[in-house]
Amino acid sequence: MAAARQRQDNLTKPQGSLGRLEELSVRLAGITGKERPRFPRKAVFVCAADHGVAAEGVSAFPQAVTPQMVLNFVRGGAAINVLARRAGARVIVADLGVAADFPADTAIAHKKVGPGTRNMAVGPAMSPGEARSAICAGIDLVEAELVRGLDLVATGDMGIGNTTASSAIVAAITGRPVADVTGRGTGIDEESWRRKVATIERALAINAVDGRNPLDVLTKVGGFEIAGLVGVILAAAAHRLPVLVDGFISGAAALIAVALCPRARDYLIAAHCSVEIGHRAVLERLELLPLLQLDLRLGEGTGAAMAMHLVDDAVAVLDEMATFADAGVSEKVL
Amino acid sequence: MAAARQRQDNLTKPQGSLGRLEELSVRLAGITGKERPRFPRKAVFVCAADHGVAAEGVSAFPQAVTPQMVLNFVRGGAAINVLARRAGARVIVADLGVAADFPADTAIAHKKVGPGTRNMAVGPAMSPGEARSAICAGIDLVEAELVRGLDLVATGDMGIGNTTASSAIVAAITGRPVADVTGRGTGIDEESWRRKVATIERALAINAVDGRNPLDVLTKVGGFEIAGLVGVILAAAAHRLPVLVDGFISGAAALIAVALCPRARDYLIAAHCSVEIGHRAVLERLELLPLLQLDLRLGEGTGAAMAMHLVDDAVAVLDEMATFADAGVSEKVL
Repeated sequence: MAAARQRQDNLTKPQGSLGRLEELSVRLAGITGKERPRFPRKAVFVCAADHGVAAEGVSAFPQAVTPQMVLNFVRGGAAINVLARRAGARVIVADLGVAADFPADTAIAHKKVGPGTRNMAVGPAMSPGEARSAICAGIDLVEAELVRGLDLVATGDMGIGNTTASSAIVAAITGRPVADVTGRGTGIDEESWRRKVATIERALAINAVDGRNPLDVLTKVGGFEIAGLVGVILAAAAHRLPVLVDGFISGAAALIAVALCPRARDYLIAAHCSVEIGHRAVLERLELLPLLQLDLRLGEGTGAAMAMHLVDDAVAVLDEMATFADAGVSEKVL
Repeated sequence: MAAARQRQDNLTKPQGSLGRLEELSVRLAGITGKERPRFPRKAVFVCAADHGVAAEGVSAFPQAVTPQMVLNFVRGGAAINVLARRAGARVIVADLGVAADFPADTAIAHKKVGPGTRNMAVGPAMSPGEARSAICAGIDLVEAELVRGLDLVATGDMGIGNTTASSAIVAAITGRPVADVTGRGTGIDEESWRRKVATIERALAINAVDGRNPLDVLTKVGGFEIAGLVGVILAAAAHRLPVLVDGFISGAAALIAVALCPRARDYLIAAHCSVEIGHRAVLERLELLPLLQLDLRLGEGTGAAMAMHLVDDAVAVLDEMATFADAGVSEKVL
């Protein structure tokens, strides 16, 4: 990081004049252990799963949308496909627990832990064993891509009902009131929002969730795709790969991952700040400043894919610019 | 714009879930008059010039840096070269009035109006004829690139002392106190900042600048590169090309351009919000929300080049995503 900082300070621009882009490049040097890192091989890990809590009427869309969107990802028609193509990233679509069966030849990573979680409002969303299996599946996703070559990881999600699980996780881990970290997801009305808040409060109470125990939180009010993303994040950090954390659902996974392994935090880059109100609490807890503020609330890894441009810009500047000495440009006098 | 909005609403994502990216795509449809615009051919117009007011000790760098950086641009070693390459944009470097002679075979647009402006602290920076010549030179730059093929324009600047001219312009046009719109440029200390403010106040007073007359402001306290950018902006808008306006200096040019022709405003996209304090006043006056907030203060068009990624992302989503009907995805129910 010191070597990268020194190089930045000798490039032909006033010191610090590229602001957060410079800071980002220095962090990326630290993450990778390279003075001039580059990230040609990128992947967005889009983990999908269903949520039993959807039965409580907490989402604007029917549960059938989860498998439908998985097939849309496979065919390349979703927002994440478009944005990942633009960023030069491959999209890894993984079924961690969608409530529908995909034929074996569907071009996804088949990692189904169960046919969706159980309804957290009446009992634990999953068993501790299922939580561990889903985390391990996420680790496996990264390990498999490392074999193909991987320099940068981005997280993405799909799962009707997963803002409910994420708000529950954020409330449990940060201790904030449920209403303060619960938003409108894909676009529910006031009445549905009140139902969503009440559902989460009930889930946290009846399951006696222990906010100091991240595995307990994940097991009781999490989701299979969120657990998968916990594994993706931990595996990426372990391999010194930067992780572009997308929005609210990815952020909830990051909270769990960092609670399990605090050093993982330093490998995370917050891609954007979501419209989902609970995302701010996530970013504050993780002490991460988001790169983009575009009022996104889609998920899928879309914000992370957009932020890849800035990551590539940051390291390109560090790697390719001329120094004052190279270019024969005078330095600061005042 | 209505057709683009309708298409956005039928793409496989919750309506509005890509936030400002969707709004941007709709604006770009309006600017170009195309339901699904794309911008394969991009150019950053980096206008360079020197400022007589540099003699007052308002900059941290010596005036020699202006021609040195022009040569750095030509050799491809500056930040704008790196970032424009990344964005797939060509860089047009134009000498509007650098206080040094470039050999005729230097690969720049030779548009020198004079060897730098005169010192605004003792009299008008330029004559009305010079201001018009510099604006026309900027128009010519765009017209010449249109012949080569041009879909998107970005503005950039180089000129030691040009934050002083820009602060003077912003104070004159918006009526705000000089101290409220004057920053530290490339990095001056407190004492130099006070001198900079006093210099601008003196320049506005002795020249009896009329803030309601944009040509008067440009002539008396502007710069040749700023005038060139006024021409770039007006020409681009006239040809229905979107203009990515970079930072503070480009913003000062945009203020003049919009004061001359208010309809030009609708063709402008604010790339980022600069560290330079006066930039906020520019964005507020133009009612533009910046795409990026990365604490940049470099100029050259660097922020505009980075924002190009988001412009391309916005129109790629509009153009390439599947609709609900195409993909067989269920629509909202709640």
